[in-house]
Amino acid sequence: METIRISDDGGVRTLELNRPDALNAFSGLLMDELTDAFIDARVTTTVKAVILTGAGRAFSAGADLQEMGRNSYRPRHGFAGLLDAILDFPKPFLLAVNGLGVGVGATICGLADFVYMAAGARLRCPFSTLGLTAEAASTVTFPQLMGRQRAAWFLMAAEWMSAAECKDAGLALEVVPDAMLMSRVREQAAKLAALPLASLIQTKSLIMDPLRPQLRESAQAENAGLAALLGGPANREALAAFREKRAADFSGL
Amino acid sequence: METIRISDDGGVRTLELNRPDALNAFSGLLMDELTDAFIDARVTTTVKAVILTGAGRAFSAGADLQEMGRNSYRPRHGFAGLLDAILDFPKPFLLAVNGLGVGVGATICGLADFVYMAAGARLRCPFSTLGLTAEAASTVTFPQLMGRQRAAWFLMAAEWMSAAECKDAGLALEVVPDAMLMSRVREQAAKLAALPLASLIQTKSLIMDPLRPQLRESAQAENAGLAALLGGPANREALAAFREKRAADFSGL
Amino acid sequence: METIRISDDGGVRTLELNRPDALNAFSGLLMDELTDAFIDARVTTTVKAVILTGAGRAFSAGADLQEMGRNSYRPRHGFAGLLDAILDFPKPFLLAVNGLGVGVGATICGLADFVYMAAGARLRCPFSTLGLTAEAASTVTFPQLMGRQRAAWFLMAAEWMSAAECKDAGLALEVVPDAMLMSRVREQAAKLAALPLASLIQTKSLIMDPLRPQLRESAQAENAGLAALLGGPANREALAAFREKRAADFSGL
Repeated sequence: METIRISDDGGVRTLELNRPDALNAFSGLLMDELTDAFIDARVTTTVKAVILTGAGRAFSAGADLQEMGRNSYRPRHGFAGLLDAILDFPKPFLLAVNGLGVGVGATICGLADFVYMAAGARLRCPFSTLGLTAEAASTVTFPQLMGRQRAAWFLMAAEWMSAAECKDAGLALEVVPDAMLMSRVREQAAKLAALPLASLIQTKSLIMDPLRPQLRESAQAENAGLAALLGGPANREALAAFREKRAADFSGL
Repeated sequence: METIRISDDGGVRTLELNRPDALNAFSGLLMDELTDAFIDARVTTTVKAVILTGAGRAFSAGADLQEMGRNSYRPRHGFAGLLDAILDFPKPFLLAVNGLGVGVGATICGLADFVYMAAGARLRCPFSTLGLTAEAASTVTFPQLMGRQRAAWFLMAAEWMSAAECKDAGLALEVVPDAMLMSRVREQAAKLAALPLASLIQTKSLIMDPLRPQLRESAQAENAGLAALLGGPANREALAAFREKRAADFSGL
Repeated sequence: METIRISDDGGVRTLELNRPDALNAFSGLLMDELTDAFIDARVTTTVKAVILTGAGRAFSAGADLQEMGRNSYRPRHGFAGLLDAILDFPKPFLLAVNGLGVGVGATICGLADFVYMAAGARLRCPFSTLGLTAEAASTVTFPQLMGRQRAAWFLMAAEWMSAAECKDAGLALEVVPDAMLMSRVREQAAKLAALPLASLIQTKSLIMDPLRPQLRESAQAENAGLAALLGGPANREALAAFREKRAADFSGL
């Protein structure tokens, strides 16, 4: 794989987003390879838990805006396929947020079983500033984790959330000093991998089964909402401002 | 309008409950005019966010008990109409709780997108002490925000909840020093109003759409529960004690 | 009753798990008698609130593993009957967790209306270490109270949770110094018992009615999951290790 680095240690598999020069932005290729990685981890019987993290100083800058205009890559799974692969992943899924997470780099936290954040990491959902809307089922995962008010502010106002705020909001289970993040996450993953996989799968299934229908329904509604906004006046103004290196002006929009 | 003062500043509309001598109690007229205000803010395209607050030292003492006996006013919308107007309001709705909130002055916090409380404000749900039950869909909004245990205690035990407790419980997003409440809420509302309204509406819709059916169903069940208790032995004892300026005696009830 | 000690004080009934030498483990007889006690408290009109606590230093060690092999007792209600009796109990149900709670001694906290924990108490869900899975609808009550991430860790990783952590997670409403636990819980129960029972029942019903279908569905799914795991390789290894007083080895399982 070109964009995902995979390594196994005991029953713990680590997937590392490996586009550090692009701040691990989710390109079409990265989404396909990450989807394949989740599917492979699912069917590989020696894998008992998966850690996802990012190479370099960022966790992920989110969707690859550079690529958006070009569209040369034809995705096999796409974002919808990635979302399905994560929602269907039956084993423990730990997230090690090693640095900034933006867009899907933030909303993916709502899909993980256990999120560990480096103390210096922070998250942002810039959807409104792009004239767009929230994704990755975050409109249901975030309210369930942090309450509707905090979720609505985080998803609508496009402000940064520090690691400490993420922990307080329940979006992160633990905040860890930056240098100790990976050792702590590996320690926790190893605890899970020492337990019977059938029990872990059964308990995760019992927790997730009642939630999945709404997660899928909201993800579909988010896609429809996104499609309605893409190319609209606010989205065009946001992209124009981005190209012209000026602040967007949404007055009247 | 007689009971609601409306003012616009940029895209932010402020609705002020304006019955300070009655501690902004919800009379029939106030409920109708507040309903009209939400409907007007909805259809007025220049309004991008709404702040609701109270004039004077209280936010709202809740239902107007003085008016209850008389019933001279024939409501056009009533409480059910107000609840619908708030549930259907598609734009950001910020609440500035400037002082005490009792009954619907407390439960309305569960319906707002963002609640800001003055440090000296506090809330109470006195339903049990009146021989009645909870309203405004609070039997579903409160458990979702603060967990079932805290919600059940707040709704059943009729004790005061301080601003700090409300923030800890997720019922308030922020506690602000009393003198700075309105400037802080206006600052946050202005941030939202600077963003594209279509994105705000879309994201709010995605968050609220999955919740609305249960909110409406619970509000109806609450109304049925209220109707079953109104005029019953405990409610009669509560009203008699109120008239006779003595403590109610619910032993055996 | 042999395993439950019942005492009334005003409108407050206290049920005490009374197998202190077995750390109040849930034997078949205890489950039947506790079921009967909830049914009796339900129909006894003078009872306005129920406190459940444990005799001795433990709250409850959970399912009676000693009894599991023998099966001499033929249960009348069983665990499913107990769960129904608690889910259907219409009056306030306070839990006084006086010491350690393991298994159902921990998951029952998700079913109570109000949980008070002694500062020295702690909880653990050892299901994975037994090759089993979670029960008592905890796969839905725990995520709703504490968010999915904390719930998944608590239910899957089999680690202890301190009283302070339980309060922070919303699983306990209050932590009380050990010596003051019962006086505090009685004080809170007496506040509720001084209010009209019809209001308490109505408000609890409004809170619980929307939650019950999923609670029952999850409890059934948990039972099916448990049945699938009982006697499986991990469960057999766990029981063998228990008998042989060694650590279980789940590698490859």
